[in-house]
Amino acid sequence: MIIELAKNYGFCFGVKRAIKKAEQIKNAASIGPLIHNNEEISRLQNDFNVKTIQSINDLSDEKKAIIRTHGITKQDLALLKKRDIEIYDATCPFVTKPQQLCEKMSAEGYEIVIFGDENHPEVKGVKSYVSTKAYVILDEKELYNIKLPSKIAVVSQTTKKVENFMKIVNYLILKCKEVRVFNTICDATFKNQEAILELSQKSDVMVVVGGKNSANTKQLFLIAKQHCKDSYLIETQEELKAEWFKDKKHCGVSAGASTPDWIIKKVLERLEEFNRENS
Amino acid sequence: MIIELAKNYGFCFGVKRAIKKAEQIKNAASIGPLIHNNEEISRLQNDFNVKTIQSINDLSDEKKAIIRTHGITKQDLALLKKRDIEIYDATCPFVTKPQQLCEKMSAEGYEIVIFGDENHPEVKGVKSYVSTKAYVILDEKELYNIKLPSKIAVVSQTTKKVENFMKIVNYLILKCKEVRVFNTICDATFKNQEAILELSQKSDVMVVVGGKNSANTKQLFLIAKQHCKDSYLIETQEELKAEWFKDKKHCGVSAGASTPDWIIKKVLERLEEFNRENS
Repeated sequence: MIIELAKNYGFCFGVKRAIKKAEQIKNAASIGPLIHNNEEISRLQNDFNVKTIQSINDLSDEKKAIIRTHGITKQDLALLKKRDIEIYDATCPFVTKPQQLCEKMSAEGYEIVIFGDENHPEVKGVKSYVSTKAYVILDEKELYNIKLPSKIAVVSQTTKKVENFMKIVNYLILKCKEVRVFNTICDATFKNQEAILELSQKSDVMVVVGGKNSANTKQLFLIAKQHCKDSYLIETQEELKAEWFKDKKHCGVSAGASTPDWIIKKVLERLEEFNRENS
Repeated sequence: MIIELAKNYGFCFGVKRAIKKAEQIKNAASIGPLIHNNEEISRLQNDFNVKTIQSINDLSDEKKAIIRTHGITKQDLALLKKRDIEIYDATCPFVTKPQQLCEKMSAEGYEIVIFGDENHPEVKGVKSYVSTKAYVILDEKELYNIKLPSKIAVVSQTTKKVENFMKIVNYLILKCKEVRVFNTICDATFKNQEAILELSQKSDVMVVVGGKNSANTKQLFLIAKQHCKDSYLIETQEELKAEWFKDKKHCGVSAGASTPDWIIKKVLERLEEFNRENS
């Protein structure tokens, strides 16, 4: 049986980079969890003494602070800089970009529409760089009763859908003379989806690794299932069953965006074992 | 019978302004016809000695040149300035705007998408202000095989539909990191349509004055007809028939964008005559 990993799977570029940084830095406090995966958080704590704190107020005698992929607010960064602490910035470059754009555009006098969840840490961070007026919205309808300025800039939370971003832009085009659109949506999630689509079309069995409550993992599983009826969603290699792979020729493997590589590796190892047992 | 003019009708702001200028200037040559209405062109020729030439090459011993609402190219303007002639610029301010934007945006390094008809004089003029690269398109499909830059600016011919403009913008959002959208569409045509819609709903007879081959006049007539079955499209007051207005209470009047006020005035006078005859 051929075992093939999807072209894109698991952690996005920014998360991979942040975890690698955390492993190198060691003995540090991450401001907010580095990743939405408890096993990975425990591993970083146990193997690298990287602990997770909820906010900069929770800092006590730590010598090193890690800023996670979502970034932090400009105000928190300023407070952090005043402390006697080394700062390691693992803000995803795709998040730094809208932060910088908000700072630059407001310096040029633009008010800014941010398409995103008001309470999401990434959005809080991005919004904190706006020195004019920021409108954080999830739907263009939220702008209906607002008197908009003649020129406006628009950015997006990195994980949002471009179709909804377009709806907001289209509304603004009707209302403002100039709309400066920065498409800051990251296509990592979309790339995982594209890759599993392609892989599931040539596989006769599919394994998707990820949290059973993870929205993006479930989405991957749904896509796989559409093209390969024998698709399975698992959280660890222990759930794999030999019978699933009996008489199968091509096994595709993918993983949700919060699934660490070492979990995927164990899954692949177990699949190789099945191959050996069957030969 | 109440006779009521639509809130918006006939010439747009830019054309009204250009004709007023031509009447004041007198003894001048207009580069291209000032308006798509032969009776009005004749009136300006006969009453104000304003003649129409096709291009600056047709200038001979004229002392005054009028630039019409569509504007001219930057190159033609430069050539005109070299001649011993007074220049009267009646370029519509809504057209001057995209010209200026093209000049400014290309100075800032943006390539520019112009939504419009490549052969339309307005578009030729606007495009001539681009010093980087200009893409003149009517449909986003024309961009499919083009390698677009990471940042781009977009303007529109003033008379285009915003729905199609949005389609182009939406495509660009997927392809470019920054899309600087300038909605340079003028809503004059749309305002005439909105006004006739409102008026036809409260009228029991409608008169639309304009060329029977004029697309925008026919559009007005269609809207009127939908809400008031006794709607009539006429080119001059001579076509009006007394029987159309028998027992009518509310007569709405509108006119296409190329219909001069003096023709509309004659229509109104004839309608008043019917009123007097019936009283």
